[in-house]
Amino acid sequence: MAKYEDLVYQLKRQIKSGVWRAGDKLPSLRKQSEHSGLSLMTVLHAYQVLESQGYVVSQARSGYRVTPELKETETHRHIAVSLTEKVDINDFVFEVLQAGRNPYMVNFGFAYPDPSLYPRQQVNRSLMSAARNLPISSTFDNLPPGNEELRTILAKRYATKGVNISPEEIVITAGALEALNLSLQVCTKPGDWVVVESPTFYGALQSLERLGLKALSVRTDTIAGIDLDALEKALQSHDVKACWLMSNHQNPLGFTLTLEKKQSLNDLLNRYKVALIEDDVYGELYQEGYPVMPVKQFDQTGNVMLCSSFSKSLVSGFRIGWVAAGKRALEMQKLQLMSTLATSAPIQLALTDYLSKCNYETHLKQLRKKLHERKRQMECLLTKYLPAGVNITSQQGGYFIWVELPLGIDSVDVFHAAIKQNISIAPGKMFSVTEHYNHCMRLNASFALNDKTVQAIITLGQIISECMVVNASKNE
Amino acid sequence: MAKYEDLVYQLKRQIKSGVWRAGDKLPSLRKQSEHSGLSLMTVLHAYQVLESQGYVVSQARSGYRVTPELKETETHRHIAVSLTEKVDINDFVFEVLQAGRNPYMVNFGFAYPDPSLYPRQQVNRSLMSAARNLPISSTFDNLPPGNEELRTILAKRYATKGVNISPEEIVITAGALEALNLSLQVCTKPGDWVVVESPTFYGALQSLERLGLKALSVRTDTIAGIDLDALEKALQSHDVKACWLMSNHQNPLGFTLTLEKKQSLNDLLNRYKVALIEDDVYGELYQEGYPVMPVKQFDQTGNVMLCSSFSKSLVSGFRIGWVAAGKRALEMQKLQLMSTLATSAPIQLALTDYLSKCNYETHLKQLRKKLHERKRQMECLLTKYLPAGVNITSQQGGYFIWVELPLGIDSVDVFHAAIKQNISIAPGKMFSVTEHYNHCMRLNASFALNDKTVQAIITLGQIISECMVVNASKNE
Repeated sequence: MAKYEDLVYQLKRQIKSGVWRAGDKLPSLRKQSEHSGLSLMTVLHAYQVLESQGYVVSQARSGYRVTPELKETETHRHIAVSLTEKVDINDFVFEVLQAGRNPYMVNFGFAYPDPSLYPRQQVNRSLMSAARNLPISSTFDNLPPGNEELRTILAKRYATKGVNISPEEIVITAGALEALNLSLQVCTKPGDWVVVESPTFYGALQSLERLGLKALSVRTDTIAGIDLDALEKALQSHDVKACWLMSNHQNPLGFTLTLEKKQSLNDLLNRYKVALIEDDVYGELYQEGYPVMPVKQFDQTGNVMLCSSFSKSLVSGFRIGWVAAGKRALEMQKLQLMSTLATSAPIQLALTDYLSKCNYETHLKQLRKKLHERKRQMECLLTKYLPAGVNITSQQGGYFIWVELPLGIDSVDVFHAAIKQNISIAPGKMFSVTEHYNHCMRLNASFALNDKTVQAIITLGQIISECMVVNASKNE
Repeated sequence: MAKYEDLVYQLKRQIKSGVWRAGDKLPSLRKQSEHSGLSLMTVLHAYQVLESQGYVVSQARSGYRVTPELKETETHRHIAVSLTEKVDINDFVFEVLQAGRNPYMVNFGFAYPDPSLYPRQQVNRSLMSAARNLPISSTFDNLPPGNEELRTILAKRYATKGVNISPEEIVITAGALEALNLSLQVCTKPGDWVVVESPTFYGALQSLERLGLKALSVRTDTIAGIDLDALEKALQSHDVKACWLMSNHQNPLGFTLTLEKKQSLNDLLNRYKVALIEDDVYGELYQEGYPVMPVKQFDQTGNVMLCSSFSKSLVSGFRIGWVAAGKRALEMQKLQLMSTLATSAPIQLALTDYLSKCNYETHLKQLRKKLHERKRQMECLLTKYLPAGVNITSQQGGYFIWVELPLGIDSVDVFHAAIKQNISIAPGKMFSVTEHYNHCMRLNASFALNDKTVQAIITLGQIISECMVVNASKNE
């Protein structure tokens, strides 16, 4: 191959793969020549060949550009996600999450609260302030366990609620998900048994799968939560190393454990020396006036790793969480140093700034009231528009509504039909390694109800009715 | 226990654990009463008991504060890290990293370049601009694979160097360390064999340990790099799934593989169907005028996962890296979604802003020149002040100098003696699962040489001389 042919080949490949898009200016002849080591004449020849084949256009005094006509056709690809024959939970969760990126979607499958409920301007102002004053030492100061002031503010917030957490047991993480993953790793090794709720947050199932851990799913009631007798039997029959659960506004069901049950759970796990990984990301989203507490409040031995973040209550997309890691705090820091090294310094400083200067408590009060109001409205609409035989559970706090369709209806079918109408839901299959919740779905009730969302609920009701008809005819 | 006693106990515990520090204002009686559910009188009684025991002081009209005298004594603890009998590599690496947080340290053990060489103002301005304009959709837009514009800019930078990488195979990560960890997980499962260099970046060893993978260390020459014959024998004798290495300015040795060797390496791994995880974090830090290329340039099958970041070349502490993941890009995104979910949105936007508006290339040119100059100066000083019998290797590009002490000297002894003088080094033990490099150390040559650093080099020379005397007397 002549030298110019090689360059022509490279550039075509780059244009096809989207490195250079329609209208982009290619590197100047001089620059291309410098980088490639080819002569100016060779580069010019290559560009002319590309021009003759319609890939680029030359413009007087402004060099070569990728042909604009290519714009809408082959250069702008999107990754298409398709469901494979064997639906594995990760592929499926990935599909649901990707669906949420479509801006026209009515996103009942979304995991976060409506971002318009966040104090965006205040948080951005804090980020600007952090950026403006970022000291040169910030990289060091914010290494694990994370920013000291931020950890102290978090500890004080817990203290005023009566939960004793030292700033020195807190490790700042890349969102609650990193906190949960580190917690899991710090008390298990591949092959170990871990108790999870059934149904549970899919992130727990994914983490277990990824880390080669074995899931022991314990029966979890829609209202009362995890069955402590079943849990104790599991602890007796298996060498369980950790229990991962949510005690407040559980995802996906929405229940909150009673105070007594939280204490019993803490005692039980202590008796069996099993670590508790408590996912409390919805802990702040109680119904205003009815505060809830984590199991951690009963922890006297440092056995509970309480994980949380700001993603569900203040700002999503910043990726800041934490774990109050008890006796495993130092181990946790070491583990973080080898996983992601540290959490972004300016982001830690931005949240420190916000929490020390702005009125987080006032925001939370408003957020809680708004979520409560919207959840009630959505509940009414669901009751009105979903067909008879569908069971709707909406509990105090949080923003999820759990919907049980008649047995035999697969909510994945509902999901696929709904997606075509630009409506997303979170099917029950995402939350279990069993098939027990295949007829269920989780709906996000945090969005404002307008004509579009009301219409979406009506459509969802029609889709479910159709699925019920198809199912009935199958069973005839 | 009476109700007030319980509150007294809680508050004492909180004061001792640093939640409330010397001088901090305790929650008002009203607020404390609200949160605890105790009556105002009970809270008042508890506060008075604390006052009588010297824990708090009351101040007219400003409530109760933690007694200022406690300041320097028991309330302000720091986590002390001590070396256990059995030195495991993680504990040791953690100790070295923690030592670097002391601001008085002359930090020859540091892994990053001198942060004063970074264009801090420009980067901070970009972060401010990102914060000011953060759209509500930013959480979605920056989910895995990460910001599209940022990925396109990265692909274009590679393209101008002749490396064909599509924006769609790039995944933005929390620093290169997450990129490397995800790469490792995407092509292995616990128990698999992975080839690493010996010596190698300690992060690789830590990751293998954490993920239950088995390390196959392949002989790596100080100048020529990995021994390809030894590598091929390893591939023949073991079912190796991945090879993790650096081809440019290797950490800790500093070598760069020749272009021919890079091609041979690529071919060899392809022949054996072994994934290459290429850590290229120092790739931009070549000696100005002598650019280097990653092995990825030869990758026709999408088998190479090229990992890099901005931490060594533009800004540390932001925690943004990426992987050009080839055929494993989609798998990588799914894995990231379950590990850390996503990379901080405003940070991605800040770097996109910097790269599209500022002159990164000009900064890099200056950085390379400065690093080259400082490395030469440090080399001269080391040659002058370290005792005879010490071998100093400083290669083209990068900012590390590799120092071999006479065999039998343990550089961990040097490390401990040096730390007492506020000088840090990176001992050879950090970089190997073998004992082969216990007499070696890596020095960071990126800092400006002033009286203090010159004195530190002189002191280091004295410490090494003393270790040599002790060692000689032991052997007599």
